[in-house]
Amino acid sequence: MNPVRLGMVGGGNGAFIGAIHRIAARMDGRYALVAGALSSNPERAQASAAELGIRGYSDFNEMAVAEAARDDGIEAVSIVTPNHMHAAPAIAFLNAGIHVICDKPLTATPEQARELADAVAASKARFFLTHNYSALPMIREARALISDGALGTVRLVQAEYIQGWLADHSDSKQAEWRADPTRAGAGAIGDIGTHAWQLAEYVTGQTPASLSAELSSIVPGRSIDDDARIALRYASGAKGGIWVSQVAVGQENGLSLRIFGSDAALEWRLQRSEELIFTPKDGPARILTRAQDRSQSYRTPPGHPEGYLEGFANLYSDVADVIRGDTTHLDRIPGIQAGLSGMAFIAATQASSAKDGAWTQVSP
Amino acid sequence: MNPVRLGMVGGGNGAFIGAIHRIAARMDGRYALVAGALSSNPERAQASAAELGIRGYSDFNEMAVAEAARDDGIEAVSIVTPNHMHAAPAIAFLNAGIHVICDKPLTATPEQARELADAVAASKARFFLTHNYSALPMIREARALISDGALGTVRLVQAEYIQGWLADHSDSKQAEWRADPTRAGAGAIGDIGTHAWQLAEYVTGQTPASLSAELSSIVPGRSIDDDARIALRYASGAKGGIWVSQVAVGQENGLSLRIFGSDAALEWRLQRSEELIFTPKDGPARILTRAQDRSQSYRTPPGHPEGYLEGFANLYSDVADVIRGDTTHLDRIPGIQAGLSGMAFIAATQASSAKDGAWTQVSP
Amino acid sequence: MNPVRLGMVGGGNGAFIGAIHRIAARMDGRYALVAGALSSNPERAQASAAELGIRGYSDFNEMAVAEAARDDGIEAVSIVTPNHMHAAPAIAFLNAGIHVICDKPLTATPEQARELADAVAASKARFFLTHNYSALPMIREARALISDGALGTVRLVQAEYIQGWLADHSDSKQAEWRADPTRAGAGAIGDIGTHAWQLAEYVTGQTPASLSAELSSIVPGRSIDDDARIALRYASGAKGGIWVSQVAVGQENGLSLRIFGSDAALEWRLQRSEELIFTPKDGPARILTRAQDRSQSYRTPPGHPEGYLEGFANLYSDVADVIRGDTTHLDRIPGIQAGLSGMAFIAATQASSAKDGAWTQVSP
Amino acid sequence: MNPVRLGMVGGGNGAFIGAIHRIAARMDGRYALVAGALSSNPERAQASAAELGIRGYSDFNEMAVAEAARDDGIEAVSIVTPNHMHAAPAIAFLNAGIHVICDKPLTATPEQARELADAVAASKARFFLTHNYSALPMIREARALISDGALGTVRLVQAEYIQGWLADHSDSKQAEWRADPTRAGAGAIGDIGTHAWQLAEYVTGQTPASLSAELSSIVPGRSIDDDARIALRYASGAKGGIWVSQVAVGQENGLSLRIFGSDAALEWRLQRSEELIFTPKDGPARILTRAQDRSQSYRTPPGHPEGYLEGFANLYSDVADVIRGDTTHLDRIPGIQAGLSGMAFIAATQASSAKDGAWTQVSP
Repeated sequence: MNPVRLGMVGGGNGAFIGAIHRIAARMDGRYALVAGALSSNPERAQASAAELGIRGYSDFNEMAVAEAARDDGIEAVSIVTPNHMHAAPAIAFLNAGIHVICDKPLTATPEQARELADAVAASKARFFLTHNYSALPMIREARALISDGALGTVRLVQAEYIQGWLADHSDSKQAEWRADPTRAGAGAIGDIGTHAWQLAEYVTGQTPASLSAELSSIVPGRSIDDDARIALRYASGAKGGIWVSQVAVGQENGLSLRIFGSDAALEWRLQRSEELIFTPKDGPARILTRAQDRSQSYRTPPGHPEGYLEGFANLYSDVADVIRGDTTHLDRIPGIQAGLSGMAFIAATQASSAKDGAWTQVSP
Repeated sequence: MNPVRLGMVGGGNGAFIGAIHRIAARMDGRYALVAGALSSNPERAQASAAELGIRGYSDFNEMAVAEAARDDGIEAVSIVTPNHMHAAPAIAFLNAGIHVICDKPLTATPEQARELADAVAASKARFFLTHNYSALPMIREARALISDGALGTVRLVQAEYIQGWLADHSDSKQAEWRADPTRAGAGAIGDIGTHAWQLAEYVTGQTPASLSAELSSIVPGRSIDDDARIALRYASGAKGGIWVSQVAVGQENGLSLRIFGSDAALEWRLQRSEELIFTPKDGPARILTRAQDRSQSYRTPPGHPEGYLEGFANLYSDVADVIRGDTTHLDRIPGIQAGLSGMAFIAATQASSAKDGAWTQVSP
Repeated sequence: MNPVRLGMVGGGNGAFIGAIHRIAARMDGRYALVAGALSSNPERAQASAAELGIRGYSDFNEMAVAEAARDDGIEAVSIVTPNHMHAAPAIAFLNAGIHVICDKPLTATPEQARELADAVAASKARFFLTHNYSALPMIREARALISDGALGTVRLVQAEYIQGWLADHSDSKQAEWRADPTRAGAGAIGDIGTHAWQLAEYVTGQTPASLSAELSSIVPGRSIDDDARIALRYASGAKGGIWVSQVAVGQENGLSLRIFGSDAALEWRLQRSEELIFTPKDGPARILTRAQDRSQSYRTPPGHPEGYLEGFANLYSDVADVIRGDTTHLDRIPGIQAGLSGMAFIAATQASSAKDGAWTQVSP
Repeated sequence: MNPVRLGMVGGGNGAFIGAIHRIAARMDGRYALVAGALSSNPERAQASAAELGIRGYSDFNEMAVAEAARDDGIEAVSIVTPNHMHAAPAIAFLNAGIHVICDKPLTATPEQARELADAVAASKARFFLTHNYSALPMIREARALISDGALGTVRLVQAEYIQGWLADHSDSKQAEWRADPTRAGAGAIGDIGTHAWQLAEYVTGQTPASLSAELSSIVPGRSIDDDARIALRYASGAKGGIWVSQVAVGQENGLSLRIFGSDAALEWRLQRSEELIFTPKDGPARILTRAQDRSQSYRTPPGHPEGYLEGFANLYSDVADVIRGDTTHLDRIPGIQAGLSGMAFIAATQASSAKDGAWTQVSP
């Protein structure tokens, strides 16, 4: 099948997440990266494009117009800029009829989110959000199990995403814009809290109705949240909790999800990403692996560890299917709804925390 | 050394925790069980005493008086009755000058707790509370590490105690009185929440200043809490969380403690009770074992698993040392203060939850 | 039920395994230790007896005669001397009609083993061997699963017992006699290899027909084996391996057993002694716990870790049952046959290794 | 940097390892696959090439000549055929001056291996062998630690590679040729035993001097080894063991390596491929992660799991460096010597097993 012609906004030399998206696009041979506005700095943009051997642009608006006009123009674009720079390029490409694959969280502000949602609604092109963890095979199997009723009624949901890399003040490029409220919009809750939120929502199929949040800035002098504890109430009566931290010393990337139902429980941890523990109420725990993953979201036999990059690639390949006309798996790709839900999560946590933890409705 | 002559109140035939206390007392050969008021039912009390070959009493008041009067009377008594029956016998024996080893939580009500505290203050005998988990060797080492400053400033404290055994209505003897507010005083927060609270307090040396709680009765028709999520604020600025559940299907006894400081972190789980994970900020995690436990709270070399009963026995043997005049380790045995703190925890969670999670001061 | 009156030979002040046996005897309240010849040094023997408050003897022969003559004499005796001193006292007590509970391995030489076996055959008293690991609940469940056919035909058996405590020359009392061929009879293969051998034999119900062994003395200057690799052939066509080491630096007590059948597999590790991994051929691994142990060899609910001492106590309590007339569980207590099998294992490994690994028949 | 122009022999539609090599080549954007003789069946070869959009050949000899003659001809070729078809194409491309990246084991017979080694010696092109596991970051760090002397003298080496997928007769394409002695040359020892052998050799820097092997065909009717237990003697006095099985029911891909030195130990398992346990003699075990990997053989921060495909890609990218003139990491890429060593391992195990386990010299 013809590779999808792909562009990229952001992701110039030295950028972390841009390089990840490029690997994900390459992994299964479904994309050809051909154009990019890789930096807001024109010189860096051109140099980075030259290094990758692709058409370089200094401006994403210009790029959207030019690529839309070419016969061999890009069919999709990856947006891998900092959060506050998601909405504008995404809207530009959507308006130009080019599919958008956007990094999370959706935007830095609710206003940007609404504008972007309007653009998605108005466009004939599609919008995808790279909540990569939800494309891991054992997460897809977790979702299938709950959807099949294997847990009975979901009663308790516990998600954690704890890291230690911001335990001190840092001047790395990645750390710097994340700590600036005007560019990031939110701290830990935006950067990784939205992953935990989306993962719980994706797997359970339920969005919490309200929450009570305690946002903290643990590192002295930091002006943005670096730790958050959030209690959740579901309309169903289920209860939940999210713990997010970027000052949990020694935690490299501690994402986990535990769900307890009336009949069985599920437990998953990113650091054991190929295992899903399923425990029925009256029997021993079972260690499910890809041998049990009905979505077959992998390239190698069970026991040959796949991980973070492969999860990202699962998303990219699903998107390629959709672009090539196969929408079989469209419903498992996060899109604008997941993005709006994440923004509602951020808004509700900030509102609740500002009111000393008052229970606050989540309004996606 | 002469074994300590021990009595017991509660713990008749078929009782769970009474049998545990007896094993703990026997383990190191430091006690001789010689008397008991093993049941509130006189016939069952006598039958149980006969079976154990000890002096039997039908009434703990009578027992306290009679034993205090004997030359070979008991030196200490274990109180292993349901929560609402802790205070009265404890006070009776303290008044009789007999040391008391009491199961947790302290009492069923704050009023009982205050009366008991007064009796402790007035008695020449000592009062001990069997928060057994805090006597495990790796927990003692965790406490020593924090006390030594190995974690720097404590920033985050996360304790969990989740079980699944009350996921359904149950008619077992153990389940029954625990689900009755008048006899238990509290549900999951009293039964196991106090363990989590005490463990965090014991290891960090800090008591949270205030908390915000969400108590739930997940199982339809249950009138007492079976799940609780509690956010903690420490006077130092540290934050914390406690999650307690008895409806977490498949969890046999999921007690864990994670503490993150400015310089290092600690992680411990009961199901890996012989391991303490210590992770310095800039180096790999280290799996500490009893080979690193400076308290030497064990009987066998590292690698020969000890566990729950040995933890209980550590407490009993420490108490025996104190009774025989060696107070070296007095400060590591939980007593009336730990009990009052646990009662303050229960009161604050109930008050906060009743006010929809309002932050509530903890007043031990 | 009346406690069994117990004596002890060896196990004086400072001895490791004697203290363990005493805890095991005390744990369930089934024994009263009343007499002992606790040391071959008469003064130390009397001092140790006085400290324990029991009748002291300087000589085990004298003790056997004297105790047999008393109305309140011991009913059973624990032999906890070094290997070369097992046979003589065991025979003396058996001849006196007193039950013997003997530490492993059976003896230091095949000659001693034969004499002891004759004494067992001739005595009306019983002989028990404390292969304690085989009394752990998950090991008993493993045996039940294989006996029930849950694994299909056993094909592969892999046992390991690796420790690091003899990685250097040591002058501890425990290390010293173990490194002396005349007192220990064998090195690592006797001390811990017999545990691995017995565990595999106990769980599978099969004794290997022949073996090929490579015994090594890794530490320079050591005259006894401290590492052994042994290949096994079973009459059934199954194959197996045993790896034993006492120079595996960092291994505290690495005993494990893995068994693969035509239909399913079992895996157990002492360091996770409460878990038994059962993996059917066509399904996910299951983590069995004491909730699945049909032998109910425990005192506390699943999730309350029991371990090494409780395993020992399981044996002692089973022996007490037998002595009190309940032979229900007689077949699960290792006895003279297990001891002779272990001696045959030692003899065959030494013979094979001396012939450069030639396959050698095992002749129990 | 210009991508390396790559060809492929074998790996047509449906082939397992060919697809893996293609992903590995794509992952880091260092290769462009442009030509292939993808099947020995001409029609399938052309169809597979067309599907991949590359130049298709029906015959690898023809391909070698034609590509060598083109200005834009391939610079390197991947050989991903069954074992008995490695030597002929590898020799053809080496003779044509084209670099060869060959799947393991080297060949099906010692004769083929010698011819291939001669061709490597005579060619100006280079030869690489894809022992992919040795390119995982924690394995590279393990090698660096031993090379640095962190373990002291290596004393014990234990490697395992156990799988369960051939526990029954199978008619899958992958299973079929592997079970045919004429095409595979060896069974489990060739397919996965060579991985274990190479991993131990790579990490320790030592090749065993002699071995004693017990090869088995466990599944009734199978004519090739499916289980092997091998004892190793090193010239240094170190001892070792390799256990290989393809009938270990429930094991998906159980590759592990444990090394014990005089000062410290290392432990690594593929199923926890991102962790390397380092245990110094007198301190706690340390869980090394990519944060400690000095080779920086990864694309993402520690905690973002990489695995099997990334290990393969590490090799491919190292090879691309060499082809582009950067030989910094040449010594960490397995080549003809690793291949010959693996063949010597196979030959020695077969010879030893045929002589009932007689110790047999390994002659690479």
